[in-house]
Amino acid sequence: MQMLSTLDPDFEARFARIVADRRESTDDVAASVASILSAVKSRGDEALIEYTARFDHYDIATDSDWTIAPEACEAAYKALDAELREALDLAAARIRAYHAAQLPEDRDYTDDAGVRLGAIWRAVDAAGLYVPGGRAAYPSSLLMNAIPAKVAGVERLAICTPTPRGKTNDLVLAAAHVAGVDEIWRVGGAQAVGAFAYGTDRIGAVDVITGPGNAYVAEAKRQLYGVVGIDMVAGPSEILVIADKDNDPDWIAADLLSQAEHDPTSQSILITDDAGFAALVDDCVTVQTSQLSTEAVARESWETNGVIIVVEDLAREAPPLADRLAAEHVELAIAEPESMLREIRHAGSVFLGRMTPEAIGDYVGGPNHVLPTGRRARFSSGLSVLDFMKRTSFLEVNEAAFARIGPAAATLAHAEGLPAHARSVELRRK
Amino acid sequence: MQMLSTLDPDFEARFARIVADRRESTDDVAASVASILSAVKSRGDEALIEYTARFDHYDIATDSDWTIAPEACEAAYKALDAELREALDLAAARIRAYHAAQLPEDRDYTDDAGVRLGAIWRAVDAAGLYVPGGRAAYPSSLLMNAIPAKVAGVERLAICTPTPRGKTNDLVLAAAHVAGVDEIWRVGGAQAVGAFAYGTDRIGAVDVITGPGNAYVAEAKRQLYGVVGIDMVAGPSEILVIADKDNDPDWIAADLLSQAEHDPTSQSILITDDAGFAALVDDCVTVQTSQLSTEAVARESWETNGVIIVVEDLAREAPPLADRLAAEHVELAIAEPESMLREIRHAGSVFLGRMTPEAIGDYVGGPNHVLPTGRRARFSSGLSVLDFMKRTSFLEVNEAAFARIGPAAATLAHAEGLPAHARSVELRRK
Repeated sequence: MQMLSTLDPDFEARFARIVADRRESTDDVAASVASILSAVKSRGDEALIEYTARFDHYDIATDSDWTIAPEACEAAYKALDAELREALDLAAARIRAYHAAQLPEDRDYTDDAGVRLGAIWRAVDAAGLYVPGGRAAYPSSLLMNAIPAKVAGVERLAICTPTPRGKTNDLVLAAAHVAGVDEIWRVGGAQAVGAFAYGTDRIGAVDVITGPGNAYVAEAKRQLYGVVGIDMVAGPSEILVIADKDNDPDWIAADLLSQAEHDPTSQSILITDDAGFAALVDDCVTVQTSQLSTEAVARESWETNGVIIVVEDLAREAPPLADRLAAEHVELAIAEPESMLREIRHAGSVFLGRMTPEAIGDYVGGPNHVLPTGRRARFSSGLSVLDFMKRTSFLEVNEAAFARIGPAAATLAHAEGLPAHARSVELRRK
Repeated sequence: MQMLSTLDPDFEARFARIVADRRESTDDVAASVASILSAVKSRGDEALIEYTARFDHYDIATDSDWTIAPEACEAAYKALDAELREALDLAAARIRAYHAAQLPEDRDYTDDAGVRLGAIWRAVDAAGLYVPGGRAAYPSSLLMNAIPAKVAGVERLAICTPTPRGKTNDLVLAAAHVAGVDEIWRVGGAQAVGAFAYGTDRIGAVDVITGPGNAYVAEAKRQLYGVVGIDMVAGPSEILVIADKDNDPDWIAADLLSQAEHDPTSQSILITDDAGFAALVDDCVTVQTSQLSTEAVARESWETNGVIIVVEDLAREAPPLADRLAAEHVELAIAEPESMLREIRHAGSVFLGRMTPEAIGDYVGGPNHVLPTGRRARFSSGLSVLDFMKRTSFLEVNEAAFARIGPAAATLAHAEGLPAHARSVELRRK
């Protein structure tokens, strides 16, 4: 953990290094991924069978080996203990409600010139959701990706997920049932992304691919950007907690650790205005870390990437520092968070007040937990129904309106050296 | 030009080939672009000076060589003849009004559980607009990119544009003045995109890069996707005209040619229900082509990529064909376009009725003319204010709401094997 004070003479240099450090994988998997994608494009299902045997040690021999049946998902859901089933239902209901309120409105109006203008939003026909196997197979992530797609109105929502040695994750299956997923394919890695983008005999092509994955999955999405729509490139997760000394240091330590326990590359940053409080929080982090089943990961993350910044004046100094970090998650554990919410321009999601730890937002808050990382909140947003929709604009001109605006179009077309454009207008003026 | 009828026994095979043909450059410029970007990242302005000398034959020696001054843009605007100046003003005003109506609303509400939820939209701090030199330097494109950025609230809007041998385009400068562009840099190609993404001593880094460009510019944007926000990958332009026999064939021919004259790779497709009308349109295309100053380009485009499809029943057959093409521009030159507008799901922009040629939309309609090409209307939208904005979600939980939803969050965190997440909730329940 690095401890900084804005009074340190080298503060700016150290803070700038923290801002610049993206903690992102530089593994060059581009060539391997390109070769996998090309094999899937040309040989389809045959390539999927080969890669699945090689990477996941799972043999696809019969029709039923390809998929996980909806009945299995329903059974997994019913087999959950009641508390967990109700928690999953509550999360799904709250995510659904938040995203339903997000649905954009169509526009259709006639302006002063008599021109009718508008835009119609529609869902894409099909979406593909990648669900990682192993450690990172979070049912909450499945809900956060699948529910916005369904709320947007996507008719066909397919999942690809690796099932190493045939192993499935019951909680993920239960979440797929709750979210109303239509298909689950037992295919993972770059080959799954390729199947989604190009389509195979078995797996129909989709229009948008979302969901987390390893370096191969991320690179495959990057290479197929433009062939299909994809969600934002995701990097290591991060939290910025802005907390005054009136907080319980144990609560703040737990919040920092809730990010640190995800991955050694995760980053937890505390900005506070009290050096004593900062030291207390660090002590609490140490004590709590040793009690976690995720101890090793959390410790490595905090030791390598953890930061505490002590400032003199939170209200004045925290917002500009927060904007430079443009963090995925920002907690405002202060008495009056409202004005700071308005002042911070760049953040994926903001958690207001002492009773809103980020973990609430990870599960049951309602807003999406798929958020821009690595300073991308400067220009991108969390996942939403808009990622599964597209807008068609439209225009209707009658003769009177045409007389008003047509001549200017012809003038500009001539000036741009496009005579057929001009002619298509001028012929109609006669 | 290919003439197809849905009654042909090989119609499906031929139509499928048309749908699959993306007409996109397969030039592999990835390695050259990667090397240019890396030079700009490490050597900054020095690299820009070298590439500008090499590729644009323009020497940057003094401070004033770097930029085109706002005064030069204002002078270019004032020097326009009155008709052209008024046309540019009308276009700008109409584009501004359409995009202003597009501004998204923030949300802030408290739900039944007592949880406060919302989202705040904000503009990015800085946007970079690439404006090509030469043939493709359209002032209308500058307006279509720059105005949405300014309407979104972007404080700093910079242009990079090559000025080969120092040559500038007065109409482009005038458009920059009208749109309120803040900076114009005389740098082009992949090196300009690199400067925008990484920043140099001279050119400040931006958050979003938009605008058309050649293969190098497009590849540079693709490689920097995620470092900055970019607009959609753009391919060759296309128009689909759906027209019954009651149209003037000369009008429809001009509309098809207004796309064909852009580039040999452009595509114009007519769907009609009358073989005689189809033949008349083709004749008119031949006659008009020979009268165009853009004859060579238009002829090559129509001969290579032009398509006429004759169907039996427009209302029934045209929408599903249109959806498979998912064209950038769709003209509905029919008596009752309204129901077909509702039925076509995939289109960049739709032009309704006989008096709305696409050229109106290119200049003075109001909706953006930067639209998804190459079937990308299946999953993406035209440029809008949203491309220059991002959304921060927020959440506020008080003690009563926490008691309602907190326990479910802890349950799910334990189930996902994330004990620090659970603890950050459980500590607050005591």
